[in-house]
This record gives sequence, C-alpha cells and structure tokens, in this order.
Amino acid sequence: MPAISKKGIQMPESPIRKLVPYAEDAKKRGTKVFHLNIGQPDIKTPQVALDAVKNNNITTLAYARSEGSEEYRTKLATYYVNNNIDVSANNIVITTGGSEALLFTIGSITDPGDEIIIPEPFYANYNGFSTASGVTVVPVISSIENNFALPKIEDFEKLITKKTKAILICNPGNPTGYLYSKEEIEKLKQVVLKHDLFLIADEVYREFTYDGLQHTSVMSLEGLEQNSIVIDSVSKRYSMCGARIGCIVSKNDEFIKTAIKFAQARLSPPTYALIASEAALDTPQRYFDEVIEEYVERRNTLITELKKIEGVKVANPKGAFYCVVQLPVKDTDDFAQWLLEKFDHNQETVMVAPASGFYSTPGEGKNQVRIAYVLNKKDLIRSVEILGAALKQYNS
Amino acid sequence: MPAISKKGIQMPESPIRKLVPYAEDAKKRGTKVFHLNIGQPDIKTPQVALDAVKNNNITTLAYARSEGSEEYRTKLATYYVNNNIDVSANNIVITTGGSEALLFTIGSITDPGDEIIIPEPFYANYNGFSTASGVTVVPVISSIENNFALPKIEDFEKLITKKTKAILICNPGNPTGYLYSKEEIEKLKQVVLKHDLFLIADEVYREFTYDGLQHTSVMSLEGLEQNSIVIDSVSKRYSMCGARIGCIVSKNDEFIKTAIKFAQARLSPPTYALIASEAALDTPQRYFDEVIEEYVERRNTLITELKKIEGVKVANPKGAFYCVVQLPVKDTDDFAQWLLEKFDHNQETVMVAPASGFYSTPGEGKNQVRIAYVLNKKDLIRSVEILGAALKQYNS
Ligand SMILES: Cc1ncc(COP(=O)(O)O)c(C=O)c1O
Ligand SMILES: Cc1ncc(COP(=O)(O)O)c(C=O)c1O
Repeated sequence: MPAISKKGIQMPESPIRKLVPYAEDAKKRGTKVFHLNIGQPDIKTPQVALDAVKNNNITTLAYARSEGSEEYRTKLATYYVNNNIDVSANNIVITTGGSEALLFTIGSITDPGDEIIIPEPFYANYNGFSTASGVTVVPVISSIENNFALPKIEDFEKLITKKTKAILICNPGNPTGYLYSKEEIEKLKQVVLKHDLFLIADEVYREFTYDGLQHTSVMSLEGLEQNSIVIDSVSKRYSMCGARIGCIVSKNDEFIKTAIKFAQARLSPPTYALIASEAALDTPQRYFDEVIEEYVERRNTLITELKKIEGVKVANPKGAFYCVVQLPVKDTDDFAQWLLEKFDHNQETVMVAPASGFYSTPGEGKNQVRIAYVLNKKDLIRSVEILGAALKQYNS
Repeated sequence: MPAISKKGIQMPESPIRKLVPYAEDAKKRGTKVFHLNIGQPDIKTPQVALDAVKNNNITTLAYARSEGSEEYRTKLATYYVNNNIDVSANNIVITTGGSEALLFTIGSITDPGDEIIIPEPFYANYNGFSTASGVTVVPVISSIENNFALPKIEDFEKLITKKTKAILICNPGNPTGYLYSKEEIEKLKQVVLKHDLFLIADEVYREFTYDGLQHTSVMSLEGLEQNSIVIDSVSKRYSMCGARIGCIVSKNDEFIKTAIKFAQARLSPPTYALIASEAALDTPQRYFDEVIEEYVERRNTLITELKKIEGVKVANPKGAFYCVVQLPVKDTDDFAQWLLEKFDHNQETVMVAPASGFYSTPGEGKNQVRIAYVLNKKDLIRSVEILGAALKQYNS
C-alpha cells in the first residue's frame, strides 16, 4: 500500500474535531449541547448581500478573475481607505477565505524548513497551513496574567534565526480577544525592520473592538510598507463564513505578484460569493453598530457570570468574540470530553474548546479553554451555570 | 526588504497570462479577438442548479462541513455508482474545485523533494500545485504522431525512483483530448502496483467522450482500491466553473483521513456553490446529450477546417474540449503574441494558448498550440479562417 506523506501525518487535526463524536452521542442521548466551541456566529448576514445573490442573473456560472475583478478590488480599496489603510486595487489579491490568504502568504514568503514566529495561544489552523508548507511555527508565549498582551520584544528577538521569515499576529486575537495597542504594533515594526522580516497581521476581526478602543492595522504604519501583509476575510465581518471570500493586502509589489501566481494556479475565487461580498460593502453602518452592541453585551454577560465561579480566571477580551478561560482543572481535554460524555445538568451540557490546541508548546494551556460568545445572552447565562455545576461535580 | 521564497519565485505564471495585455491592446485598437485559449465554456449552467441558488433561504451564511455534508456526499456517491465507480459517502472529500482536490492530494502523499510522473503535454497548473508543494514533476513525453496515447510503460519505469510517489494522468486529457483505453489504464495499474505508487486520475472531463467511446475510471479497476485517487469537479460537467466545487474520491481510508485534515484547516467549501452543486445532480440526461452533441459538432467543424490549412497537423480529440495543433511555425509563443500584437483580418484575430506551457521538458511543444473548442461553430469557422490567413502572412 503506498504511503501517506510525512507532512500528511503531521497535519494537525482540528482541536475540536475529536470532541465531535462525543457531542453527537450526547445529542443522541437527548442532552442539549450549548456550543461555546466554535467561531460560527448566529448573527444574520446583511440583507444586501443575501439579496444580491438571490437576484443574480447568471446563466453561465463562469470563472472569476484569479485575483478578483478590478471592480471589486477597487471598491474594497475604498473600504480600506475608510479604515485608515491607504491602498489601491493593485495592493489586493482576492482569496477563497482568509484561510487561502494565509496559505498563499506562507507559500510566497517561505520555503520548507523556514520559521514563522507567532505569539501563542494562536488560531489553531496557523499550525495546519504551516505544516502544509513545511514551515516551522516558533511560538512566543503570552500569558493570561496580563491578558495575553504582546510578549516582550526581547522574547521575539531571542527566537529569530536565519530561517525566520515572518512574525504573524492576530489582531484582535482569536482565541485571546486581545487587541494590540498602537505602541505594541510600533514595537513589532522596529523588530521586523531590524531583522528584515515580514509582519503578517491577521485582521479578520478588525471591526470587533470594544470599550471605545481603536484597531491599529499594520498597514497604517509609515515605513512598514514593504514588510507588512494583512490577512482579511468577509467571514466574521458580515457573518458570512460560508461565502469563502477573503483577501491579502500589501504594498509590497513583488509579494503581491507572487501571491497572484498562487491564485492563478487555482483559477478563481467562488463567483456567487464574490457577488455577495461585493454587495456586502454597501452594508449600512447601523448593522455594525447593532452587531458590536450585541457582542459587547454578550461579552459583559459572559465575563460577569464566569467570574462568579470559584477558581475561574478569565482574560478580559477587548476584541473579536472569544476569550480564554482558566479553569480549576488539570486537563481541559479530559474535562471537555467529560462534559459531553458523562455530564448533564437537567439534560443540558456545554461544549468548549480545550486551549491546548491553540498552543504549540507541549503542555501549555492545559488548564484553559476557549469560549466563543456567539450565543445569545440567555444561552450564555445558562451555559455558564452548567459549567459551574460541572466543575463542582468534576472536582468532587 | 524581506525576500520572496524560492518556491514563490519558481511558481509558474499561467501560460496564457503573458498574452493577456496584448489581447487587451488589440481590443483597444478595435480588433475583435476570438478566444480559443481558455477552458471556459459558453454552455449554459443547468437551470436546476441556478434556481436552487436563487431560491435559497439562507439568513446566516454559515460554514459548511469541511469535507462536505453527509447528504451531498451520499448523493454524489450515487452519481459515481451510476458511472461504474462503486463508492460511498466516506470515500469522498468535497473540495473547492478540482484545483483544491489536486492540492490536497499532492499534500497528502508527497513531501518536498518527492516526484510525480505525468505524461506530457499536461494541464499547466499541475506544475503550479507541484511547485507549491515542493514536488518535482517528472514528465514522460507522449507524441502528437499517435494522438498523445499513453507512452510505453517502459518509459514510465525508466523514470521511477525512490522519490516517485505517484503517476498522474488526465483522462480525457487537457490539452490533448486523448481518452485512455481500458487497456492503457490496465497497464498503469500494473506499474503502480509493482512499484507501490498512487495512481491519480484527473477525470474532470469524464462526461465529455465522443464517437461512442466509453470512459474508464481508475476507480473501476479491481485490485487498485488502495492506489487509485480520482480528482473531480463540477466546473466542466455542469458548465459551472465559477462555483468552485470539486472532490477527491478514493477507497484508501488513510489517504481520505489525511485529505480531510487539509480540508479542516481551510474550514469549509463555499456554501452557495454547494447548493448549486447538490442541485446539479438532478440535471436531466437531456442536458448532457445536447451538450455532447454540441461539442461533437464543434470538434468536427474545428478539425475539418484546421485540416484545410497547409502544414497544420492536429491530434483528433476523443474527449474533453481541447486539441493540440501543430503549426508550420518555429515558435508559437512568438506567433501567438504576433496574432494579437501585429495581425488582424478584417479587424478580427484569434488568441491561442502556446503549447510550451503544457510541457515541462524545455523546448518541447514549441510548434504547437492548444485550441479549446468552447465557441459556437460559426465563430470556430471564422477563427480557423483567420488562423489560416495569419499563418500565410506570418510565414512570408
Ligand atoms: C483568526 C482567524 N483567521 C482566519 C480565519 C479563517 O477564516 P476564513 O477562512 O473563514 O476567512 C479564522 C476563522 O475562524 C480566524 O479565526
Ligand atoms: C484537467 C483539469 N483539471 C483540473 C482543472 C481545475 O478545474 P476546477 O478547479 O475549476 O475544478 C481543470 C480546469 O481547467 C482542468 O482542465
């Protein structure tokens, strides 16, 4: 029998995936499962985007231009200019989700054996895209004690080798909810300029910032034009995860030219989704105001409730819709499985994402989980109540 | 300035791409350009697929399951069973186009430095996906003299090394239009079993076979279950290239499990396109009968007209909708550019794809072009007339 590749063997499984059969079994037993484990919001997609697809008049569903149409990229550039990112259509490559934007970016700037430094905990699929490209993720640990703020620049510098090609940040962060300050981005600027690295910022949660805080894009810093790359996506911004449209933004022409070659090989982004995404740019501001208000209330509810549970520590999220929660248990992989397999509270339980999957340093995050506040307030309150009861029982 | 990767530099540009600016200039001069260069059919997408999207009632456009829903894969398995490919839902991974199916397949079975043997001329993007994975394409030349039939098995065996992981064929072939016989597939079976290799068959043109010939899938051969992988796509079958749905089919469970890990990393195929693709499975047989009839007439028209031109040799295509044509010129890269840049015939010209982009052996195919018969008969006749006039002028 012919063999699978080493790379294929190393490809990580999704950290949530292994829990899925337990969740299915729980449901079969008649237990209701509250899903705090996924980044799939329940928020409605803007009507203008949905309508554009319903009213399309396509007769032959043809390939779109590999890097996205001039028209869409031009409209998108206006969105960026309004967000303090001064770019034009030529600085943008449309991709099939932020996922493909990450894959093309890593492919364009790394060869097998190269290294990318990433503050951890980080979005688990950075591991997958890196493995697929034969690239080593070098983690620099941030800690729950200071809300997962940027690690000291010395910590980054210690890890830089000849093989280091980039620093990758997620801002605001999944799973941390941390929003990097302008000062933190400035510090990263100094280190990437000094060592001639790319600074990749995954800004797919750009709009989701709370408490009056402003998002600082790596593309808004002067002098960083040749080094900075933004990963973006319509998935969370417009609650249209299933569209599969994202983009790469950079002023580095050689990088963009290279990314376009990857885009050409796969021919085209999805055409219906392009229609939805272009239309979504006309979403009224009111939509975002309402969504942000909703998320702030959810966050406040979640944090308030969580703090009532003894032994629970939570980093206060300033953006995105996740938080990392430290629980009074030794091994959240075991606890998360137990919640689904052995526990219920009046026939209800919760599914959480064990945080170990968001760390690449073995053993880190063993007592943490990621909670996504993508449920309504009532369900969040009930979920935390279940979690509290579960912890009591699990620990006794 | 940080550097692009070696891989990024090596990524091939689309063989047609460099001609695009010349085509645009020609259009600006008022010259009409007939596009014989691309695999984008003008055929209408089945109404049932278009309607399913127009009538969708999505309010939150959510992620789909990474490997595709149970329901769609089950329906798709029935399609395969009807096509003499005995599989079930678990043998299928839904991908974002045949393109992503190729990428996941190569990722699952090769590591950087490994080799894949491919009969050339071949679909140009095999180069791109291989380069992106750090894999070396080892070409085995097939020749226009015998219609691009399968090269001798000895020619394959000579090229097999410890690094060879697979033989990749395209059946029916782009750009050759060649349809491998059952005997040829049997020969490939022997060689992959003997050397413990995967046999990957890109069967995206499965339906497009002519002259009463039957398509033989690598999945229909007994004893090849652990070795065979099919790449498939809705792009050409239903003329819905812009959907971006394809799949991987294999009975090798370990391979499928690995491919799913790649699928999980990128989260989801495009949701609207899944709706269209699932509905397309209900396309009435009449649709295909009409489409095949149309392609046969186009092929006959094209070949008849081409043979009237002195010095032109053409391999008679038995499938897909391409043919490779040998022209009485030294360098078709130069000729194709000249057609757009310097020539017109009553303000009209044609764009063809120089065949060198479909070979990886340097210097091969220099006097060949690929012609896609994706235009109606009237336009095809006119196109060949222009080509004839152009050759006369170019050679004088
Ligand atoms: C931080 C981050 N980046 C990228 C993505 C990829 O999203 P998509 O491919 O849907 O754009 C996600 C999805 O959850 C994410 O959380
Ligand atoms: C032989 C072959 N394989 C695969 C593809 C990829 O098609 P898609 O990604 O649209 O499914 C094409 C497209 O032209 C092709 O000709």
